[in-house]
Amino acid sequence: MLKLFIGNKNYSSWSMRTGVLIKQADIACEEVVVRFDSFAAGSNFRQIIDAISPTGKVPVLVDTDVVNGLVVWDTLAIAEYLAEKFPEKALWPRDVAARAQARSVCAEMHSGFTGLRSNCPMNIEASLRETGQLVWRDQPAVRADVKRIVRMWSELLRASGGPMLFGDFSIADAYFAPVVMRLKTYFLPVALDVAAYMERVCALPGVQAWVDGALAEKDFLDFEEPYRLSSS
Amino acid sequence: MLKLFIGNKNYSSWSMRTGVLIKQADIACEEVVVRFDSFAAGSNFRQIIDAISPTGKVPVLVDTDVVNGLVVWDTLAIAEYLAEKFPEKALWPRDVAARAQARSVCAEMHSGFTGLRSNCPMNIEASLRETGQLVWRDQPAVRADVKRIVRMWSELLRASGGPMLFGDFSIADAYFAPVVMRLKTYFLPVALDVAAYMERVCALPGVQAWVDGALAEKDFLDFEEPYRLSSS
Ligand SMILES: N[C@@H](CCC(=O)N[C@@H](CS)C(=O)NCC(=O)O)C(=O)O
Ligand SMILES: N[C@@H](CCC(=O)N[C@@H](CS)C(=O)NCC(=O)O)C(=O)O
Repeated sequence: MLKLFIGNKNYSSWSMRTGVLIKQADIACEEVVVRFDSFAAGSNFRQIIDAISPTGKVPVLVDTDVVNGLVVWDTLAIAEYLAEKFPEKALWPRDVAARAQARSVCAEMHSGFTGLRSNCPMNIEASLRETGQLVWRDQPAVRADVKRIVRMWSELLRASGGPMLFGDFSIADAYFAPVVMRLKTYFLPVALDVAAYMERVCALPGVQAWVDGALAEKDFLDFEEPYRLSSS
Repeated sequence: MLKLFIGNKNYSSWSMRTGVLIKQADIACEEVVVRFDSFAAGSNFRQIIDAISPTGKVPVLVDTDVVNGLVVWDTLAIAEYLAEKFPEKALWPRDVAARAQARSVCAEMHSGFTGLRSNCPMNIEASLRETGQLVWRDQPAVRADVKRIVRMWSELLRASGGPMLFGDFSIADAYFAPVVMRLKTYFLPVALDVAAYMERVCALPGVQAWVDGALAEKDFLDFEEPYRLSSS
Protein backbone atom coordinates (compact mmCIF):
# COMPACT_ATOMS: atom_id res chain seq x y z
CA MET A 1 0.00 0.00 0.00
CA LEU A 2 1.11 3.55 -0.70
CA LYS A 3 1.01 6.25 1.95
CA LEU A 4 1.77 9.89 1.16
CA PHE A 5 2.65 12.26 4.00
CA ILE A 6 1.99 15.88 3.14
CA GLY A 7 1.82 19.27 4.84
CA ASN A 8 -0.94 21.86 4.83
CA LYS A 9 -2.69 21.84 1.48
CA ASN A 10 -3.01 25.62 1.55
CA TYR A 11 0.71 26.26 1.97
CA SER A 12 2.75 23.23 0.97
CA SER A 13 3.62 23.61 -2.68
CA TRP A 14 5.86 20.54 -2.79
CA SER A 15 3.15 18.41 -1.22
CA MET A 16 0.68 19.70 -3.79
CA ARG A 17 2.71 18.38 -6.72
CA THR A 18 2.58 14.81 -5.48
CA GLY A 19 -0.97 15.07 -4.14
CA VAL A 20 -2.32 16.36 -7.46
CA LEU A 21 -0.37 13.76 -9.42
CA ILE A 22 -1.72 10.87 -7.35
CA LYS A 23 -5.32 12.10 -7.39
CA GLN A 24 -5.40 13.10 -11.03
CA ALA A 25 -3.81 9.79 -12.11
CA ASP A 26 -6.24 7.93 -9.86
CA ILE A 27 -3.53 6.08 -7.95
CA ALA A 28 -4.68 4.27 -4.80
CA CYS A 29 -2.80 5.94 -1.97
CA GLU A 30 -3.59 6.92 1.59
CA GLU A 31 -3.00 10.63 2.19
CA VAL A 32 -1.76 11.65 5.63
CA VAL A 33 -1.84 15.38 6.34
CA VAL A 34 0.71 16.47 8.93
CA ARG A 35 -0.22 20.03 9.71
CA PHE A 36 2.57 22.58 9.99
CA ASP A 37 2.53 23.59 13.65
CA SER A 38 6.17 24.63 13.49
CA PHE A 39 9.39 23.34 11.93
CA ALA A 40 11.32 23.74 15.18
CA ALA A 41 12.66 20.83 17.21
CA GLY A 42 9.98 19.21 19.33
CA SER A 43 7.04 20.32 17.18
CA ASN A 44 4.40 17.79 16.22
CA PHE A 45 5.48 18.09 12.57
CA ARG A 46 9.13 17.41 13.44
CA GLN A 47 8.30 14.43 15.61
CA ILE A 48 6.22 12.73 12.95
CA ILE A 49 8.22 13.57 9.84
CA ASP A 50 11.72 13.19 11.29
CA ALA A 51 10.78 9.64 12.24
CA ILE A 52 9.91 8.85 8.61
CA SER A 53 12.15 10.89 6.33
CA PRO A 54 15.90 11.49 6.50
CA THR A 55 15.38 15.06 5.32
CA GLY A 56 12.50 15.82 7.69
CA LYS A 57 10.44 17.33 4.88
CA VAL A 58 7.19 16.66 3.11
CA PRO A 59 6.17 15.13 0.81
CA VAL A 60 7.32 11.63 1.73
CA LEU A 61 5.95 8.47 0.15
CA VAL A 62 6.00 5.13 1.94
CA ASP A 63 5.40 1.95 -0.03
CA THR A 64 4.54 -0.82 2.39
CA ASP A 65 4.39 -3.39 -0.44
CA VAL A 66 8.18 -3.36 -0.55
CA VAL A 67 9.91 -5.53 2.09
CA ASN A 68 10.66 -3.45 5.21
CA GLY A 69 8.70 -0.52 3.78
CA LEU A 70 10.32 1.71 1.20
CA VAL A 71 10.63 5.42 1.96
CA VAL A 72 10.88 7.75 -1.05
CA TRP A 73 11.46 11.41 -0.36
CA ASP A 74 11.80 14.52 -2.48
CA THR A 75 9.07 15.34 -4.98
CA LEU A 76 10.88 14.43 -8.16
CA ALA A 77 11.97 11.03 -6.86
CA ILE A 78 8.38 10.33 -5.77
CA ALA A 79 7.14 11.26 -9.24
CA GLU A 80 9.70 8.97 -10.92
CA TYR A 81 8.83 6.16 -8.52
CA LEU A 82 5.15 6.39 -9.35
CA ALA A 83 5.87 6.66 -13.08
CA GLU A 84 7.80 3.38 -12.90
CA LYS A 85 5.29 1.62 -10.65
CA PHE A 86 2.32 2.54 -12.85
CA PRO A 87 3.61 2.48 -16.44
CA GLU A 88 0.05 2.10 -17.78
CA LYS A 89 -0.78 5.57 -16.45
CA ALA A 90 1.87 7.27 -18.62
CA LEU A 91 2.73 9.83 -15.96
CA TRP A 92 5.55 10.96 -18.22
CA PRO A 93 4.78 11.52 -21.93
CA ARG A 94 5.25 8.32 -23.95
CA ASP A 95 7.28 10.00 -26.69
CA VAL A 96 10.99 9.97 -25.89
CA ALA A 97 11.62 13.59 -26.92
CA ALA A 98 8.55 14.90 -25.11
CA ARG A 99 9.55 12.90 -22.04
CA ALA A 100 13.03 14.41 -22.05
CA GLN A 101 11.51 17.88 -22.28
CA ALA A 102 9.02 17.16 -19.53
CA ARG A 103 11.84 16.01 -17.29
CA SER A 104 13.84 19.12 -18.21
CA VAL A 105 11.10 21.52 -17.18
CA CYS A 106 10.42 19.58 -13.97
CA ALA A 107 14.11 19.53 -13.03
CA GLU A 108 14.25 23.24 -13.84
CA MET A 109 11.29 23.80 -11.50
CA HIS A 110 12.80 21.56 -8.86
CA SER A 111 15.90 23.71 -8.44
CA GLY A 112 14.84 27.04 -9.87
CA PHE A 113 12.30 29.87 -9.89
CA THR A 114 13.56 30.98 -6.50
CA GLY A 115 12.47 34.57 -7.15
CA LEU A 116 8.84 33.54 -7.55
CA ARG A 117 9.02 30.91 -4.81
CA SER A 118 10.45 33.21 -2.16
CA ASN A 119 8.47 36.36 -2.99
CA CYS A 120 5.14 34.69 -3.71
CA PRO A 121 4.73 31.80 -1.27
CA MET A 122 1.85 29.52 -2.11
CA ASN A 123 -1.32 30.48 -0.29
CA ILE A 124 -4.26 29.02 -2.16
CA GLU A 125 -6.92 30.53 0.06
CA ALA A 126 -5.57 34.09 -0.16
CA SER A 127 -6.24 36.80 -2.71
CA LEU A 128 -3.34 39.25 -2.70
CA ARG A 129 -3.72 41.54 -5.66
CA GLU A 130 -1.98 44.58 -4.24
CA THR A 131 0.87 42.54 -2.80
CA GLY A 132 1.28 40.99 -6.24
CA GLN A 133 1.45 44.41 -7.87
CA LEU A 134 4.12 45.55 -5.42
CA VAL A 135 6.13 42.38 -5.90
CA TRP A 136 5.82 42.74 -9.65
CA ARG A 137 6.98 46.35 -9.51
CA ASP A 138 9.88 45.77 -7.13
CA GLN A 139 11.23 42.29 -7.80
CA PRO A 140 12.95 41.79 -11.14
CA ALA A 141 13.56 38.14 -10.21
CA VAL A 142 9.80 37.57 -10.09
CA ARG A 143 9.31 39.21 -13.46
CA ALA A 144 12.12 37.10 -14.93
CA ASP A 145 10.66 33.88 -13.51
CA VAL A 146 7.16 34.64 -14.79
CA LYS A 147 8.56 35.59 -18.19
CA ARG A 148 10.33 32.23 -18.42
CA ILE A 149 7.24 30.33 -17.27
CA VAL A 150 4.95 32.08 -19.72
CA ARG A 151 7.33 31.39 -22.56
CA MET A 152 7.81 27.77 -21.53
CA TRP A 153 4.09 27.06 -21.25
CA SER A 154 3.24 28.88 -24.50
CA GLU A 155 5.84 26.95 -26.45
CA LEU A 156 4.90 23.59 -24.97
CA LEU A 157 1.17 24.17 -25.52
CA ARG A 158 1.79 25.24 -29.10
CA ALA A 159 3.98 22.17 -29.76
CA SER A 160 1.63 19.66 -28.11
CA GLY A 161 -1.66 21.25 -29.09
CA GLY A 162 -2.75 21.10 -25.42
CA PRO A 163 -4.89 20.89 -23.41
CA MET A 164 -2.06 20.12 -20.97
CA LEU A 165 1.62 20.99 -21.44
CA PHE A 166 2.41 17.72 -23.20
CA GLY A 167 -1.07 16.98 -24.55
CA ASP A 168 -2.51 14.69 -21.89
CA PHE A 169 -1.98 15.37 -18.20
CA SER A 170 1.54 14.48 -17.06
CA ILE A 171 3.89 15.01 -14.13
CA ALA A 172 4.83 18.36 -15.69
CA ASP A 173 1.33 19.76 -15.11
CA ALA A 174 1.38 18.54 -11.51
CA TYR A 175 4.80 20.14 -11.13
CA PHE A 176 3.50 23.51 -12.24
CA ALA A 177 0.14 23.39 -10.48
CA PRO A 178 1.51 25.34 -7.47
CA VAL A 179 2.85 27.95 -9.90
CA VAL A 180 -0.66 28.32 -11.29
CA MET A 181 -1.87 28.87 -7.71
CA ARG A 182 0.75 31.56 -7.11
CA LEU A 183 0.01 33.37 -10.36
CA LYS A 184 -3.65 33.48 -9.32
CA THR A 185 -3.20 34.43 -5.66
CA TYR A 186 -0.92 37.34 -6.60
CA PHE A 187 -2.74 38.23 -9.86
CA LEU A 188 0.49 38.25 -11.84
CA PRO A 189 0.06 39.24 -15.48
CA VAL A 190 0.16 36.46 -18.09
CA ALA A 191 -0.72 36.09 -21.76
CA LEU A 192 -4.14 34.80 -22.82
CA ASP A 193 -3.04 31.33 -23.88
CA VAL A 194 -1.36 30.89 -20.52
CA ALA A 195 -4.41 32.15 -18.64
CA ALA A 196 -6.51 29.59 -20.53
CA TYR A 197 -4.07 26.82 -19.57
CA MET A 198 -4.28 27.96 -15.94
CA GLU A 199 -8.06 27.64 -16.04
CA ARG A 200 -7.77 24.13 -17.47
CA VAL A 201 -5.35 23.19 -14.67
CA CYS A 202 -7.76 24.55 -12.06
CA ALA A 203 -10.57 22.50 -13.59
CA LEU A 204 -8.68 19.19 -13.26
CA PRO A 205 -10.41 17.01 -10.65
CA GLY A 206 -7.06 16.34 -8.98
CA VAL A 207 -6.45 20.08 -8.59
CA GLN A 208 -10.02 20.82 -7.53
CA ALA A 209 -9.82 18.21 -4.78
CA TRP A 210 -6.58 19.73 -3.52
CA VAL A 211 -7.97 23.29 -3.57
CA ASP A 212 -11.12 22.16 -1.75
CA GLY A 213 -8.92 20.58 0.89
CA ALA A 214 -6.89 23.77 1.21
CA LEU A 215 -9.99 25.93 1.61
CA ALA A 216 -11.37 23.62 4.27
CA GLU A 217 -8.26 23.80 6.44
CA LYS A 218 -8.73 27.28 7.88
CA ASP A 219 -5.32 27.27 9.58
CA PHE A 220 -3.54 30.59 9.73
CA LEU A 221 0.18 30.04 10.17
CA ASP A 222 2.04 33.28 10.63
CA PHE A 223 5.39 31.83 9.53
CA GLU A 224 3.78 31.08 6.15
CA GLU A 225 2.13 34.51 5.95
CA PRO A 226 4.57 37.32 5.20
CA TYR A 227 1.77 39.51 3.83
CA ARG A 228 -1.19 39.18 6.23
CA LEU A 229 -1.97 39.33 9.93
CA SER A 230 -5.01 37.11 9.56
CA SER A 231 -7.12 35.47 6.88
CA SER A 232 -10.61 36.88 6.24
CA MET B 1 25.37 11.75 -31.83
CA LEU B 2 25.45 13.21 -28.35
CA LYS B 3 26.98 16.58 -27.59
CA LEU B 4 27.39 17.88 -24.04
CA PHE B 5 27.94 21.60 -23.49
CA ILE B 6 29.64 22.35 -20.20
CA GLY B 7 31.30 25.25 -18.40
CA ASN B 8 34.73 25.50 -16.79
CA LYS B 9 35.67 22.14 -15.32
CA ASN B 10 37.27 23.83 -12.34
CA TYR B 11 34.18 25.77 -11.35
CA SER B 12 31.06 24.26 -12.87
CA SER B 13 29.69 21.75 -10.41
CA TRP B 14 26.55 21.01 -12.42
CA SER B 15 28.60 20.36 -15.53
CA MET B 16 30.83 18.01 -13.55
CA ARG B 17 27.94 15.71 -12.64
CA THR B 18 27.06 15.04 -16.26
CA GLY B 19 30.68 15.00 -17.46
CA VAL B 20 31.72 12.43 -14.87
CA LEU B 21 28.65 10.31 -15.55
CA ILE B 22 29.30 10.19 -19.28
CA LYS B 23 33.01 9.49 -18.96
CA GLN B 24 32.73 6.94 -16.17
CA ALA B 25 29.93 5.09 -17.99
CA ASP B 26 31.94 5.22 -21.20
CA ILE B 27 29.19 6.85 -23.22
CA ALA B 28 30.22 8.20 -26.62
CA CYS B 29 29.63 11.93 -26.46
CA GLU B 30 31.35 15.02 -27.74
CA GLU B 31 32.22 17.41 -24.91
CA VAL B 32 32.11 21.13 -25.71
CA VAL B 33 33.60 23.41 -23.08
CA VAL B 34 32.13 26.92 -23.13
CA ARG B 35 34.35 28.87 -20.80
CA PHE B 36 32.74 31.25 -18.34
CA ASP B 37 33.84 34.69 -19.52
CA SER B 38 30.81 36.29 -17.86
CA PHE B 39 27.12 35.53 -17.47
CA ALA B 40 26.12 39.05 -18.53
CA ALA B 41 24.28 39.83 -21.76
CA GLY B 42 26.58 39.88 -24.76
CA SER B 43 29.24 37.62 -23.23
CA ASN B 44 30.62 34.76 -25.28
CA PHE B 45 29.01 32.29 -22.85
CA ARG B 46 25.61 33.96 -23.18
CA GLN B 47 25.76 34.06 -26.95
CA ILE B 48 26.57 30.37 -27.29
CA ILE B 49 24.42 28.91 -24.51
CA ASP B 50 21.36 31.13 -24.95
CA ALA B 51 21.18 29.93 -28.55
CA ILE B 52 21.01 26.31 -27.38
CA SER B 53 19.20 26.17 -24.05
CA PRO B 54 16.00 27.89 -22.92
CA THR B 55 17.49 28.40 -19.45
CA GLY B 56 20.85 29.67 -20.69
CA LYS B 57 22.72 27.37 -18.32
CA VAL B 58 25.13 24.50 -18.53
CA PRO B 59 25.09 21.56 -18.73
CA VAL B 60 23.00 21.09 -21.88
CA LEU B 61 22.86 17.86 -23.84
CA VAL B 62 22.02 17.79 -27.54
CA ASP B 63 21.08 14.50 -29.18
CA THR B 64 21.38 14.90 -32.92
CA ASP B 65 20.08 11.35 -33.52
CA VAL B 66 16.58 12.59 -32.71
CA VAL B 67 14.76 14.34 -35.56
CA ASN B 68 15.39 18.11 -35.43
CA GLY B 69 17.94 17.61 -32.65
CA LEU B 70 16.73 17.10 -29.11
CA VAL B 71 17.87 19.55 -26.42
CA VAL B 72 17.87 18.25 -22.84
CA TRP B 73 18.71 20.72 -20.10
CA ASP B 74 19.09 20.54 -16.35
CA THR B 75 21.39 17.94 -14.84
CA LEU B 76 18.79 15.54 -13.51
CA ALA B 77 16.87 15.41 -16.79
CA ILE B 78 20.13 14.73 -18.64
CA ALA B 79 20.92 11.89 -16.23
CA GLU B 80 17.46 10.36 -16.70
CA TYR B 81 17.74 10.71 -20.47
CA LEU B 82 21.05 8.87 -20.52
CA ALA B 83 19.76 6.20 -18.13
CA GLU B 84 16.89 5.50 -20.54
CA LYS B 85 19.02 5.65 -23.68
CA PHE B 86 21.64 3.25 -22.33
CA PRO B 87 19.74 0.74 -20.15
CA GLU B 88 22.61 -1.76 -20.42
CA LYS B 89 24.83 0.64 -18.48
CA ALA B 90 22.57 0.58 -15.39
CA LEU B 91 23.18 4.24 -14.60
CA TRP B 92 20.55 3.88 -11.88
CA PRO B 93 20.73 0.85 -9.55
CA ARG B 94 18.81 -2.13 -10.98
CA ASP B 95 17.00 -2.88 -7.73
CA VAL B 96 13.74 -0.95 -7.48
CA ALA B 97 14.20 0.11 -3.84
CA ALA B 98 17.82 1.13 -4.35
CA ARG B 99 16.81 3.06 -7.46
CA ALA B 100 14.13 4.96 -5.54
CA GLN B 101 16.67 5.83 -2.87
CA ALA B 102 19.24 6.89 -5.45
CA ARG B 103 16.68 9.16 -7.06
CA SER B 104 15.74 10.54 -3.64
CA VAL B 105 19.30 11.55 -2.77
CA CYS B 106 19.86 13.03 -6.24
CA ALA B 107 16.64 15.04 -6.08
CA GLU B 108 17.64 16.16 -2.58
CA MET B 109 20.99 17.30 -3.96
CA HIS B 110 19.35 18.94 -6.95
CA SER B 111 17.34 21.35 -4.82
CA GLY B 112 19.18 21.35 -1.53
CA PHE B 113 22.47 21.77 0.29
CA THR B 114 22.37 25.48 -0.40
CA GLY B 115 24.49 26.23 2.67
CA LEU B 116 27.38 24.18 1.35
CA ARG B 117 26.84 25.26 -2.23
CA SER B 118 26.82 28.99 -1.54
CA ASN B 119 29.57 29.09 1.10
CA CYS B 120 31.93 26.58 -0.52
CA PRO B 121 31.77 27.09 -4.26
CA MET B 122 33.47 24.33 -6.24
CA ASN B 123 37.06 25.17 -7.05
CA ILE B 124 38.90 21.95 -7.78
CA GLU B 125 42.27 23.54 -8.27
CA ALA B 126 42.24 25.48 -5.00
CA SER B 127 43.29 24.42 -1.50
CA LEU B 128 41.46 26.58 1.03
CA ARG B 129 42.06 25.07 4.44
CA GLU B 130 41.77 28.26 6.49
CA THR B 131 38.72 29.47 4.58
CA GLY B 132 37.17 26.09 5.28
CA GLN B 133 37.86 26.40 8.98
CA LEU B 134 36.27 29.85 9.11
CA VAL B 135 33.25 28.69 7.16
CA TRP B 136 32.93 25.68 9.45
CA ARG B 137 33.12 27.88 12.53
CA ASP B 138 30.72 30.56 11.32
CA GLN B 139 28.15 28.85 9.11
CA PRO B 140 25.76 26.47 10.84
CA ALA B 141 24.11 25.76 7.48
CA VAL B 142 27.40 24.31 6.22
CA ARG B 143 27.76 22.15 9.29
CA ALA B 144 24.17 20.93 8.91
CA ASP B 145 24.69 20.11 5.23
CA VAL B 146 27.91 18.21 5.89
CA LYS B 147 26.30 16.35 8.77
CA ARG B 148 23.47 15.22 6.50
CA ILE B 149 25.88 14.21 3.73
CA VAL B 150 28.11 12.22 6.05
CA ARG B 151 25.14 10.40 7.49
CA MET B 152 23.64 9.73 4.06
CA TRP B 153 26.86 8.35 2.62
CA SER B 154 27.66 6.24 5.70
CA GLU B 155 24.22 4.66 5.70
CA LEU B 156 24.21 3.99 1.98
CA LEU B 157 27.73 2.52 2.02
CA ARG B 158 26.83 0.30 4.95
CA ALA B 159 23.65 -0.90 3.24
CA SER B 160 25.25 -1.52 -0.15
CA GLY B 161 28.63 -2.73 1.04
CA GLY B 162 30.30 -0.19 -1.30
CA PRO B 163 32.57 0.61 -2.98
CA MET B 164 30.18 3.24 -4.38
CA LEU B 165 27.00 4.54 -2.72
CA PHE B 166 24.82 1.85 -4.28
CA GLY B 167 27.49 -0.79 -4.82
CA ASP B 168 28.54 -0.19 -8.41
CA PHE B 169 28.98 3.33 -9.77
CA SER B 170 25.67 5.08 -10.43
CA ILE B 171 24.26 8.52 -11.15
CA ALA B 172 24.26 9.12 -7.38
CA ASP B 173 28.07 9.02 -7.23
CA ALA B 174 28.29 11.41 -10.17
CA TYR B 175 25.78 13.66 -8.43
CA PHE B 176 27.92 13.86 -5.30
CA ALA B 177 31.31 14.08 -7.01
CA PRO B 178 31.29 17.92 -6.79
CA VAL B 179 30.51 17.61 -3.08
CA VAL B 180 33.59 15.42 -2.71
CA MET B 181 35.58 18.19 -4.42
CA ARG B 182 34.21 20.83 -2.05
CA LEU B 183 34.90 18.75 1.05
CA LYS B 184 38.51 18.39 -0.13
CA THR B 185 39.11 21.97 -1.25
CA TYR B 186 37.83 23.34 2.06
CA PHE B 187 39.20 20.46 4.22
CA LEU B 188 35.85 19.97 5.92
CA PRO B 189 35.88 17.32 8.65
CA VAL B 190 34.34 13.93 7.80
CA ALA B 191 34.30 10.46 9.33
CA LEU B 192 36.79 7.83 8.20
CA ASP B 193 34.37 5.71 6.15
CA VAL B 194 33.33 8.84 4.30
CA ALA B 195 36.94 9.89 3.71
CA ALA B 196 37.61 6.45 2.25
CA TYR B 197 34.60 6.78 -0.07
CA MET B 198 35.89 10.20 -1.15
CA GLU B 199 39.23 8.66 -2.10
CA ARG B 200 37.48 5.97 -4.13
CA VAL B 201 35.47 8.64 -5.94
CA CYS B 202 38.65 10.58 -6.72
CA ALA B 203 40.23 7.42 -8.09
CA LEU B 204 37.42 6.81 -10.61
CA PRO B 205 38.76 7.31 -14.15
CA GLY B 206 35.78 9.54 -14.95
CA VAL B 207 36.58 11.80 -12.01
CA GLN B 208 40.31 11.78 -12.67
CA ALA B 209 39.76 12.87 -16.25
CA TRP B 210 37.55 15.73 -15.08
CA VAL B 211 40.03 16.86 -12.42
CA ASP B 212 42.90 16.72 -14.92
CA GLY B 213 40.85 18.91 -17.24
CA ALA B 214 40.14 21.35 -14.41
CA LEU B 215 43.81 21.61 -13.46
CA ALA B 216 44.80 22.22 -17.06
CA GLU B 217 42.41 25.16 -17.50
CA LYS B 218 44.32 27.78 -15.54
CA ASP B 219 41.53 30.34 -15.81
CA PHE B 220 41.07 32.62 -12.84
CA LEU B 221 37.55 34.01 -12.82
CA ASP B 222 37.05 36.54 -10.07
CA PHE B 223 33.26 36.13 -10.01
CA GLU B 224 33.83 32.48 -9.08
CA GLU B 225 36.48 33.32 -6.49
CA PRO B 226 35.06 34.85 -3.32
CA TYR B 227 38.13 33.81 -1.32
CA ARG B 228 41.20 34.59 -3.47
CA LEU B 229 42.68 37.43 -5.51
CA SER B 230 44.62 35.02 -7.71
CA SER B 231 45.41 31.34 -7.93
CA SER B 232 48.69 30.07 -6.38
N1 LIG C 1 13.09 19.36 -2.40
C1 LIG C 1 12.06 18.96 -1.46
C2 LIG C 1 11.48 20.16 -0.78
C3 LIG C 1 10.46 19.79 0.26
C4 LIG C 1 10.14 20.95 1.20
O1 LIG C 1 10.87 21.94 1.27
N2 LIG C 1 9.01 20.80 1.93
C5 LIG C 1 8.61 21.79 2.92
C6 LIG C 1 7.12 22.02 2.85
S1 LIG C 1 6.61 22.62 1.26
C7 LIG C 1 8.92 21.23 4.31
O2 LIG C 1 8.66 20.07 4.58
N3 LIG C 1 9.50 22.03 5.18
C8 LIG C 1 9.78 21.61 6.53
C9 LIG C 1 11.16 21.97 6.97
O3 LIG C 1 11.87 22.61 6.20
O4 LIG C 1 11.50 21.58 8.09
C10 LIG C 1 11.01 18.17 -2.21
O5 LIG C 1 10.87 18.39 -3.41
O6 LIG C 1 10.34 17.31 -1.64
N1 LIG D 1 19.58 23.28 -12.21
C1 LIG D 1 20.57 23.52 -13.24
C2 LIG D 1 21.65 24.43 -12.74
C3 LIG D 1 22.66 24.74 -13.79
C4 LIG D 1 23.53 25.92 -13.42
O1 LIG D 1 23.21 26.70 -12.52
N2 LIG D 1 24.65 26.09 -14.16
C5 LIG D 1 25.55 27.21 -13.97
C6 LIG D 1 27.00 26.75 -14.04
S1 LIG D 1 27.39 25.53 -12.79
C7 LIG D 1 25.35 28.18 -15.12
O2 LIG D 1 25.25 27.78 -16.26
N3 LIG D 1 25.27 29.48 -14.84
C8 LIG D 1 25.13 30.46 -15.85
C9 LIG D 1 24.08 31.48 -15.55
O3 LIG D 1 23.50 31.40 -14.45
O4 LIG D 1 23.84 32.32 -16.40
C10 LIG D 1 21.13 22.18 -13.67
O5 LIG D 1 21.12 21.25 -12.86
O6 LIG D 1 21.57 22.02 -14.81
